[in-house]
Amino acid sequence: MTESVEKWGIFELALSGPADGNPFTEVSFGARFRHKNRVVEPDGFYDGDGVYRVRFMPDTEGEWHYETVSNVDELAGHRGSFTCVPPTTPGNHGPVQVHNIYHFAYADGTPHVSVGTTCYAWVHQGDALEEQTLETLKQAPFNKMRMCVFPKHYPFNANEPPLYPYVRGEDGQWDFQRFNPAFFQHFETRVGQLRDMGIEADIILFHPYDRWGFATMPPEADDLYLRYVVARLAAYRNVWWSMANEFDLMKSKHEADWDRFFRIVQESDPYQHLRSIHNCRRFYDHGKPWVTHTSVQHSDLARVPEWREAYRKPVVVDECRYEGNIEKMWGNITAQEMVHRFWLGTIGGGYVGHGETYLHPEDILWWSKGGVLHGESPARIAFLRRLLEEHAPEGLDPVSREGASKGEDYYLFYFGVAQPGRFLFTLPEAHQYRLDVIDTWNMTITPVEGTYSGTFMLELPSKPFHAVQARRVDS
Amino acid sequence: MTESVEKWGIFELALSGPADGNPFTEVSFGARFRHKNRVVEPDGFYDGDGVYRVRFMPDTEGEWHYETVSNVDELAGHRGSFTCVPPTTPGNHGPVQVHNIYHFAYADGTPHVSVGTTCYAWVHQGDALEEQTLETLKQAPFNKMRMCVFPKHYPFNANEPPLYPYVRGEDGQWDFQRFNPAFFQHFETRVGQLRDMGIEADIILFHPYDRWGFATMPPEADDLYLRYVVARLAAYRNVWWSMANEFDLMKSKHEADWDRFFRIVQESDPYQHLRSIHNCRRFYDHGKPWVTHTSVQHSDLARVPEWREAYRKPVVVDECRYEGNIEKMWGNITAQEMVHRFWLGTIGGGYVGHGETYLHPEDILWWSKGGVLHGESPARIAFLRRLLEEHAPEGLDPVSREGASKGEDYYLFYFGVAQPGRFLFTLPEAHQYRLDVIDTWNMTITPVEGTYSGTFMLELPSKPFHAVQARRVDS
Repeated sequence: MTESVEKWGIFELALSGPADGNPFTEVSFGARFRHKNRVVEPDGFYDGDGVYRVRFMPDTEGEWHYETVSNVDELAGHRGSFTCVPPTTPGNHGPVQVHNIYHFAYADGTPHVSVGTTCYAWVHQGDALEEQTLETLKQAPFNKMRMCVFPKHYPFNANEPPLYPYVRGEDGQWDFQRFNPAFFQHFETRVGQLRDMGIEADIILFHPYDRWGFATMPPEADDLYLRYVVARLAAYRNVWWSMANEFDLMKSKHEADWDRFFRIVQESDPYQHLRSIHNCRRFYDHGKPWVTHTSVQHSDLARVPEWREAYRKPVVVDECRYEGNIEKMWGNITAQEMVHRFWLGTIGGGYVGHGETYLHPEDILWWSKGGVLHGESPARIAFLRRLLEEHAPEGLDPVSREGASKGEDYYLFYFGVAQPGRFLFTLPEAHQYRLDVIDTWNMTITPVEGTYSGTFMLELPSKPFHAVQARRVDS
Repeated sequence: MTESVEKWGIFELALSGPADGNPFTEVSFGARFRHKNRVVEPDGFYDGDGVYRVRFMPDTEGEWHYETVSNVDELAGHRGSFTCVPPTTPGNHGPVQVHNIYHFAYADGTPHVSVGTTCYAWVHQGDALEEQTLETLKQAPFNKMRMCVFPKHYPFNANEPPLYPYVRGEDGQWDFQRFNPAFFQHFETRVGQLRDMGIEADIILFHPYDRWGFATMPPEADDLYLRYVVARLAAYRNVWWSMANEFDLMKSKHEADWDRFFRIVQESDPYQHLRSIHNCRRFYDHGKPWVTHTSVQHSDLARVPEWREAYRKPVVVDECRYEGNIEKMWGNITAQEMVHRFWLGTIGGGYVGHGETYLHPEDILWWSKGGVLHGESPARIAFLRRLLEEHAPEGLDPVSREGASKGEDYYLFYFGVAQPGRFLFTLPEAHQYRLDVIDTWNMTITPVEGTYSGTFMLELPSKPFHAVQARRVDS
């Protein structure tokens, strides 16, 4: 009987090989996976203690045959096969991909309404806090987590991580040629737990907040690192690659470095997971072909339609400031303002990300360390997510400054800080719609009597942060 | 005994002259006013019924002698004199001028903190409503009124005005060569009433909202009109000239027309009252030398510092949307948002204008017709005005994204939709300051214990729409 692996699950092969010398640089290892005439060749990686692994995420049901490839005899030429069967895990819809230019869908066609949050360094906090973070996420509305590989050095982030990605050489300095497998085993355990909760792991490969030297490694070390991370993690279907957080603050890296990082990830990842790069101020050119979607830091959500037009890719505003009360202006907007920005970005045809930065006696701020949520925005973000998943899971496209639609089936108008007592709506003449008035903060949906079509004036409650949805009711 | 006229008051001379032909175009009339070696030559104007008038606003105390000038014998060569005495009317500080590049002061040096509102067509509503508007203004915080000369045709503005600026010819069409003195007498009465209440009249000379043809007169008529208005009104010390409202919507006028209008007003006005032009979308080049200050329509008050830098003139955001609930998005922001925009513009070193557009059963919206105020922003605007007049009447200049100062004497920080629980302030090391936490919406000022200097972290209430002021207490 052949082994069976669910579609978009992970097939993993472990072999014993040389533990001497530097297996990370001296041994090449991988495998060719073949289904009918198709071949996929993921890189393997050294996992310490003489163990070499290669992971593969099959995307086609049926028989797959493999043969290992290596520059070391004992690791080369191992053959075998398995059967890829339909997904058995509930919620396994495959990796998320770009869909209809501006939106996302899982590989099986299920729409993905991206609702992200950020806990940059949550995997570097030790098991107790990390498990609390996972518990919190079970109740939270988020289906994407922005998280760094490297530990974080920053205000509110003074603690050392339990594990480091590298081992130290005899000189006491980090040896950027020798990874610490325990670090990555831990990291990928967390990525797998997110996957099992239906949460995409938006993995931030580089970031500038560093006191260890990981932000300023030589180019060869950067490249080795990228290939190692991709070899270990690409088989996880919930992976997204973010080249960096605030790339423009990393003064030792230049435009050509970022281009090269994108190309290395693009070449190494057999599954072409989503790729992006996150700015502080200056945008990277998201029009470059290896960028699959924008990952924007910006406070003005009204500009989402402009970025859609500029890049013709999904616009994800991962950071629009955080709900909280810290002294930094990027981390102290009200819950109401956070929810307002979610709605503005949504109506603009984009996707907005959450973060939370409330002062905490032990400096446990969600935005970096995870833990528990203290804010009032997540409940309202959950409300918005439910609304979108029910009525417009394929995404909304802007039709006016206040309105967005899913074709002619569904319209959503949002008035923000405006409080119209009435509004002149324009819907297609050819269809009939039922309307609801939505209080985005109090999370109420109030049906309007009758059906509507074409251009009409509708009375509204003269209150801010309200929306109106129009659901097509003819067939 | 010589007649006496208070400084910045109006000396007016009326003479009888020809009433036949077209006195508006065929008779030139004016006077030379001389004080010592200085000569000022205001134009006169025909006021109907064979009466010609010339008005003069003396700005220097002492003896003034005059002699009339005309192409008609009976109006020429009339001589006389008067004594200009110190101001006798309480609140008479002279006309407002630009002061310290970005700010305003009256001619006697008293600072002017500009806090404007808009009732475009209030003088065209008949006495009952106009008098109600004046009553409202007595209790309101506004010291500038944007108001149109021509009547207004627009949504919510369907009524005919009681008076028109022109008379009709025999063909029933408006005769743009013959003004209606009664119209202008009425208009200047209202301007004078504003003056007596300490309110600047920001007179809008052209606007696009028209069904009578006043927006599309031939160039000769435009020029004749401008000279007539200036001759009648320039002697009122509270006059500001606004070439147009939403000039960019007047398709029949071109850049050269606006330039010419500015030059005509600049040449004709002996007192060089403030001059501006108000946009809808596209800005006029406020850098042109005849523009004394910007008059901006824009929703993003965070851009005030940018416009200050661009033009090096006072920035007045006369229209940042209006408090109200109409169906037009420019007229339905909440009172809280209006107040927020006032604070943002203030902290940016600019001056913000108010307007109000609440739906009304008889279409009496403050923004156009006046009447009474229904909104909640004026009380908060009054609070801000009192604060500025007490602590920084000469105006604030931005020092950071959140802070503005008056030199090193006074600092004002505003956090808007942010709710910091603490903030790192930087004040000069060399001085000591007392701090107050200000709730801009609830209008409370809460002193902070102790004195502060240099850089320090201060605990704050974690609530939005708060500000902090720092008052220097060493001498």
